[in-house]
Amino acid sequence: MFLLIAVLIVGKTNEVFKIMREIYMDNAATTQLDSKVLRKMLLYLKREYGNPSSMHDKGIIAKNAISSARKKTADILNCKPEEIIFTGSGTESDNLAIFGYARKNKHKGNHIITTKIEHHAVLDCFKMLKKEGFKVTFLDVDKDGFVDLEQLKNSITSKTILVSIIYANNEIGTVQDIPKIAEICHKKQAVLHTDACQAANYLEIDVKKLGVDMMTLNGSKIYGPKGVGVLFKKSDIEIEPIIFGGGQEKGLRSGTENVANIIGFAEALERVRRNLVKEVEKLTFLRDYMINELLKIPDSRLNGPRKNRLPNNVNISFLNIEGESAALLLNEEGIFISTGSACSSKDLDPSHVIMAIGCPAEVAHSSLRFSLGKDICRRDVDYVIKKTKKVVSHLRNMSPLHYKLQEQVKQRKDDDCTLIKEDFE
Amino acid sequence: MFLLIAVLIVGKTNEVFKIMREIYMDNAATTQLDSKVLRKMLLYLKREYGNPSSMHDKGIIAKNAISSARKKTADILNCKPEEIIFTGSGTESDNLAIFGYARKNKHKGNHIITTKIEHHAVLDCFKMLKKEGFKVTFLDVDKDGFVDLEQLKNSITSKTILVSIIYANNEIGTVQDIPKIAEICHKKQAVLHTDACQAANYLEIDVKKLGVDMMTLNGSKIYGPKGVGVLFKKSDIEIEPIIFGGGQEKGLRSGTENVANIIGFAEALERVRRNLVKEVEKLTFLRDYMINELLKIPDSRLNGPRKNRLPNNVNISFLNIEGESAALLLNEEGIFISTGSACSSKDLDPSHVIMAIGCPAEVAHSSLRFSLGKDICRRDVDYVIKKTKKVVSHLRNMSPLHYKLQEQVKQRKDDDCTLIKEDFE
Repeated sequence: MFLLIAVLIVGKTNEVFKIMREIYMDNAATTQLDSKVLRKMLLYLKREYGNPSSMHDKGIIAKNAISSARKKTADILNCKPEEIIFTGSGTESDNLAIFGYARKNKHKGNHIITTKIEHHAVLDCFKMLKKEGFKVTFLDVDKDGFVDLEQLKNSITSKTILVSIIYANNEIGTVQDIPKIAEICHKKQAVLHTDACQAANYLEIDVKKLGVDMMTLNGSKIYGPKGVGVLFKKSDIEIEPIIFGGGQEKGLRSGTENVANIIGFAEALERVRRNLVKEVEKLTFLRDYMINELLKIPDSRLNGPRKNRLPNNVNISFLNIEGESAALLLNEEGIFISTGSACSSKDLDPSHVIMAIGCPAEVAHSSLRFSLGKDICRRDVDYVIKKTKKVVSHLRNMSPLHYKLQEQVKQRKDDDCTLIKEDFE
Repeated sequence: MFLLIAVLIVGKTNEVFKIMREIYMDNAATTQLDSKVLRKMLLYLKREYGNPSSMHDKGIIAKNAISSARKKTADILNCKPEEIIFTGSGTESDNLAIFGYARKNKHKGNHIITTKIEHHAVLDCFKMLKKEGFKVTFLDVDKDGFVDLEQLKNSITSKTILVSIIYANNEIGTVQDIPKIAEICHKKQAVLHTDACQAANYLEIDVKKLGVDMMTLNGSKIYGPKGVGVLFKKSDIEIEPIIFGGGQEKGLRSGTENVANIIGFAEALERVRRNLVKEVEKLTFLRDYMINELLKIPDSRLNGPRKNRLPNNVNISFLNIEGESAALLLNEEGIFISTGSACSSKDLDPSHVIMAIGCPAEVAHSSLRFSLGKDICRRDVDYVIKKTKKVVSHLRNMSPLHYKLQEQVKQRKDDDCTLIKEDFE
């Protein structure tokens, strides 16, 4: 009798408090703030609230904290502290680098180069500069997303002042050969900026080894806080600010410094760099295992390369399904991922990156991106593989359900929603 | 014997652990984050870390949180939620309003108007727009810092598209008659932006009552977090973004939203508005008491008006002293304030605001600004008055020391340091 009641209670409890396993595989969109990073930030969110521009002790403490964070960041990037500019996001750093350099140096030439697989934070700056009168070359990429170095070489003219190429692609994980690209640019006197937001956790970011002139990083991709970015800018490069005012960050980024976030950025960067080797090894194994298992699903296709790929990126198209429906069903299983479609104005636009590697819109629409992170283990990956197989086969078998899901997908959107589009800021 | 030892121990302890009373009177520079606001933010700094652009549950939770914060802010400002744009700072909001409107609407006219007592976040945008080809009128102010409404009326022509006037001055506390200014602007079809960063804690911010078309607010002045601002923009006004990318904030401010800070902003705004009447009453009393007491010091002069003055602003010049030396001595007593000088390129530049009200450079250099806040009580004010009297008389008597202090002042600076200049972002 007692046993029966106990069983009933447990059954009921499970029903009421549906215990859901949560697996976050959307680390390319944003990462969870590391609790140890938050701990460092709290001092500046609580007690040390001074404005770094104030000359009293409260101000000096804040100012010194920023100096330490700047030094720490510079040491990791192997540059001078004064070459580090703290901004409000990765997007802002990209904008500052591109607008800042192009507008300041337009007397040197009016030609600028980027690729077709950049994040919108870069792409849209180039589109805007085109309106401002610059000539823009958008480089093609091959079927795996690699920039054609010959095309790059041939595109640079005596009028070319700036090249911006994404280090590691946020959607398909392709890692470009930045040292080689830098060499090509510098041979022809063009300045190179790279968006390294997705790279910082796993790849070389020593700016001297990379040979870049400017590089963008982002707090929210490195288990740091949202709302802080860094632009590394070589001291002999001149740029113009995009935000004017009190003259903070040597006049290049006005506005009271977000002290806590700056502290958080430096701490997060230090932590991911410290754990890099171990993480790369673990994630590379899990990534390859996951890719191999998921490719066993019929009519599936890996987007992006096998080699020179971000260790945490798995992007696969499952033909004849809608990626968004699959993502929604996986969400119901507690699995959080992104898709290769981006909604704008309520229409489904296929990813410009997957289109750029030569895939038709259907392949883009049917793609799922799993971006792994430091808390992911083999057990999680097995669970995700199992559920993905189930969901894909389910969607392929059940077309009436498929339409119902499409309705749900539509409900979840409004005008300004985007998906992969926003990934790194 | 025992008593003697006890006395010795207590004496020694006091010496070793010098117990310093800390009185923060630099709230115009930045405010301490309200612990209750931080508590609300922590959920989004810890568990709910999703990217609001992601379509899974973690993303939806973050997106909904922003929607609530937007609604809360809009309700307080008496506008529509879609008229609220979250940015990274007050400075960025000012820049977005001014660059955004001027660049988007230059086909309508090339004349823009501001005042000589704006914060640099406004002033420097106008200077930049002048370089871009706009004609700029910088309005004078009277001896108390009030804009001459007749001059404003006469300055607006058919070519004038934008007027930007600071609601409450950050240095001398002058509160402009915004409804009257709005009436004048609208009669001549000019759009009005106001920087209300210092006003939000104490004054009317109902945008319909004020009649403004755009208004800037700042988290770090309202006991909210640093690194978040708001731009209210009437829905029938069109502006251009200054940061491009993923299309967040209806395409007007790209970059992953700083979710925790946005939540913190709305919470902080709600809290200061809830306590407004009580705070205004308390601070007005303390302000007037403090002004009256400090003016008893010989050769002192109130900067800014008696009436229509921010309830928390006390700005007084003590002739024949260096404000920075006084601030440094007060700092040694645990009193944190600002001065009327702003250092740039290691030179002492007098405040442009105090110069604009017709004072010579010496008066600007000898000014001290005490900006009170919610935690200040009568006892603190009495302490500050006592110490200020002591410091002023000390500095006037001891010129050798004076020079030594000047040395210390110089040491505390470097190239990019500024003082009042940076006040509201």
